[in-house]
Amino acid sequence: MAKKNSLETGQKVIIGGMFLSLAKTNTGIAKFILENASTHITRPADVKRIEPLLEELRQAMVSDTGEDNSV
Amino acid sequence: MAKKNSLETGQKVIIGGMFLSLAKTNTGIAKFILENASTHITRPADVKRIEPLLEELRQAMVSDTGEDNSV
Repeated sequence: MAKKNSLETGQKVIIGGMFLSLAKTNTGIAKFILENASTHITRPADVKRIEPLLEELRQAMVSDTGEDNSV
Repeated sequence: MAKKNSLETGQKVIIGGMFLSLAKTNTGIAKFILENASTHITRPADVKRIEPLLEELRQAMVSDTGEDNSV
């Protein structure tokens, strides 16, 4: 059981890392995360932990009209 | 530094958990994960760890024509 949980957590880290990496250059994904976070992330500890990240995504979207250094 | 890393890991777990939860009922997200995993998840240890999950998503998409018990 503990082994299964640790595998699942590892998978969440990998998938989460992929989406957060994609969100940096893909506004659509950033927007999707922002739109779904409030309904899907409800545990107070999680909400608190995720807030700085959501703020970062919001800022990135606002400044999206500026120059783009991505390849 | 360690504190920052642990915060980032925690955020990845939360975001990853959200997407994996969404993928169970949203074929579009399952498809997106499958399509992007091979290019974004390249560390051998990560590839190995994520493989059972990708297989699960593939199976879910194949059986997507069957009955749907989601609300």
